[in-house]
Amino acid sequence: MKYFELTAIGQRAKKVSGTLAICGTDTKNAALHCIADSLITNAQKIIAANAVDVDNGRTRNFSKALLDRLCIDEQRIRAIADGIRKVSELPDPIGDIVEGWTLPNNLEIRKVRVPLGVICIIFESRPNVTADAAALCLKSGNVAILRGGKEAINTNVEIVNAMRAALASCDLPEDYIQLVTTTDRAAVHELLRLNQFIDVVIPRGGAGLIKMVLENSSIPVIETGTGVCHTFVDSSADLTMALAIAINAKVSRPAVCNAMETLLIHCDIADKFMPQLIDAMLENAVELRGCARSKQYNDRIKLATSDDWAAEFLDLILAVKIVDNVDEAIAHIDKYSTGHSEAIITNDYFNAQRFQREIDAAAVYVNASTRFTDGCEFGFGAEIGISTQKLHARGPMGLKELTSIKYLINGSGQIR
Amino acid sequence: MKYFELTAIGQRAKKVSGTLAICGTDTKNAALHCIADSLITNAQKIIAANAVDVDNGRTRNFSKALLDRLCIDEQRIRAIADGIRKVSELPDPIGDIVEGWTLPNNLEIRKVRVPLGVICIIFESRPNVTADAAALCLKSGNVAILRGGKEAINTNVEIVNAMRAALASCDLPEDYIQLVTTTDRAAVHELLRLNQFIDVVIPRGGAGLIKMVLENSSIPVIETGTGVCHTFVDSSADLTMALAIAINAKVSRPAVCNAMETLLIHCDIADKFMPQLIDAMLENAVELRGCARSKQYNDRIKLATSDDWAAEFLDLILAVKIVDNVDEAIAHIDKYSTGHSEAIITNDYFNAQRFQREIDAAAVYVNASTRFTDGCEFGFGAEIGISTQKLHARGPMGLKELTSIKYLINGSGQIR
Repeated sequence: MKYFELTAIGQRAKKVSGTLAICGTDTKNAALHCIADSLITNAQKIIAANAVDVDNGRTRNFSKALLDRLCIDEQRIRAIADGIRKVSELPDPIGDIVEGWTLPNNLEIRKVRVPLGVICIIFESRPNVTADAAALCLKSGNVAILRGGKEAINTNVEIVNAMRAALASCDLPEDYIQLVTTTDRAAVHELLRLNQFIDVVIPRGGAGLIKMVLENSSIPVIETGTGVCHTFVDSSADLTMALAIAINAKVSRPAVCNAMETLLIHCDIADKFMPQLIDAMLENAVELRGCARSKQYNDRIKLATSDDWAAEFLDLILAVKIVDNVDEAIAHIDKYSTGHSEAIITNDYFNAQRFQREIDAAAVYVNASTRFTDGCEFGFGAEIGISTQKLHARGPMGLKELTSIKYLINGSGQIR
Repeated sequence: MKYFELTAIGQRAKKVSGTLAICGTDTKNAALHCIADSLITNAQKIIAANAVDVDNGRTRNFSKALLDRLCIDEQRIRAIADGIRKVSELPDPIGDIVEGWTLPNNLEIRKVRVPLGVICIIFESRPNVTADAAALCLKSGNVAILRGGKEAINTNVEIVNAMRAALASCDLPEDYIQLVTTTDRAAVHELLRLNQFIDVVIPRGGAGLIKMVLENSSIPVIETGTGVCHTFVDSSADLTMALAIAINAKVSRPAVCNAMETLLIHCDIADKFMPQLIDAMLENAVELRGCARSKQYNDRIKLATSDDWAAEFLDLILAVKIVDNVDEAIAHIDKYSTGHSEAIITNDYFNAQRFQREIDAAAVYVNASTRFTDGCEFGFGAEIGISTQKLHARGPMGLKELTSIKYLINGSGQIR
């Protein structure tokens, strides 16, 4: 794909963004239902294209897990369509008056929610993201430019074709949703310089993808995802609760960003807690990598390297460290946290308060599993990703986080 | 200044950002008063350093306007100190609970305002920005790294010395405020890659500075400033009101970003309005550059070039265009707007509604001067700049716009 082709995609997106910005909620919801139907109608085409991607993946020796994420069948397409219908049921944030006031000179100010404009989403392998992201953009009045991984290119083309056909059948511009079909990395670099046409870039994927986007984009980026999440079991913790939370945070879904990667344990309760923890983790096939002190509790604990403290394992591996007090726990988290989700298990009022005040992360928990950091769990109804940066949005991003504001000021001849 | 010296500035800033983030409002306010006092106490040192900068400026043939902006005397220092005392009186946004709710599983969620962390402000010539920006950062719990223009380097060094001495006298870390003393452009490029230590970059200055920062920063940037502001006089406008607003928007302070640069006039009222407008503008020494139709009303109107429609004159120059209807006005604004402030003067309900819905700008006015787009006018009490981007903050940025949020989640053993 040549540079001018990418520019053309940007130009087309910008051109239609004005009409989508003022599109009524009913129209957008009807389009979402149309898109869901179209995905079902075109299921066989999508599945056939997906078979090509899966075959290519096998040839390239993809892991079973990666092939599973890539694979789409009728059931998955139905799930995607259901997800899109659910988006149609969410409240439309556009047009909300966030604040409003009257100035001493009688100027009336309203701060009103508007779309960001054109959002470029750059993602990897999972083709369900294609439809998901497009639906959230559409509902929030944003034009979507999608750029998926080359592993799923054939699937993505068919999914986007089905969505665009649905838009056309609703008499809406197909260009509300566009796919960048080149899978060449240089093209992404060009895309990331189209400030004139694209308002925001959201990368969704592994740390490598996110870093590449951050380093090369002159367009504002919302950083998502990397989660080196900690749980600190304080000396006053209810140990039954602590164990249940630790198992849940590590084992329930180890491959996601809100899973726990490091467990910190207060030395005063280590003798009592460590044996229970070790048994439970080993029962759940979790590999333990510990500090020298924790290693003394069981030979099956490997000695953690300095890399382990900074690692997002995304796997059944847990780093374990015994600390002297809440200060050491906070200092360790400060050093290794990616600012995603951190938890303290405690019955000490002041330690709970201190932990929540001092820890600098999107979500700071007392006595709960870090696994709750999620748009659906938080009640947002959907999620485009979890922001680990502080600008614009932090934590789970729902429809509201895909919006900006503008000030509407109504006067009767006021001058300054 | 070597790269490692910039890194050291970043490291020092990051290191103290945790304590500033949890610093109480009383402590921050006391520090602000201390800083104001210190600027007064050190006035003679600052004025002496400023004399060197002004001399250098004269040698380099700076314009009178630029020299005036650069020059600092006792009165200006008193004004700066008063401004800082006013910042201490503003409500502290940190710790505000923006939202809060309880999940079905009884998890309590609070969304709480926190500082962004470390803010780097890159600005030009005006040394009052140095103290101003540092005070707003301090009040909002953010560590400031300041990088001013080389024209004011000697003045900036003394202002920052006075501020740091004040912090030390309050037993607070001096590094809450740091100045990058190199004036070499390569150093700015290095600064703009210190993602590890700096959370946000805010450029304040001309279009060239802003473009340079946007293109070279891998740290999130808040774009400020450029304003090609339009006013459209609709056919139903009260022409007396329209004239008063046009004069105010153009003449009251032409060098600022919220001043009007282009006036669009509905053709139906051109015969009546143009002569009044031309007289009033010429009386105020405004140079007029018009479209072919408007030029017919007076020989002193120069024919506008295509560059004039896109120009931020920041001067007593006005582009004038006669349009057929509100559609043409909106289309012209869409093409040339920088997304700052746009106004319609009308008595037509539907045109007013349409203009506010369709125009994509930070502030959209009906029957008022664009000059009101300003943090103080909006009632924010202070302003760090006017954002013309859609991410994070749009329009005038006060203390709230220098904050992020974090989620505090309190449970009693919840797992997912």
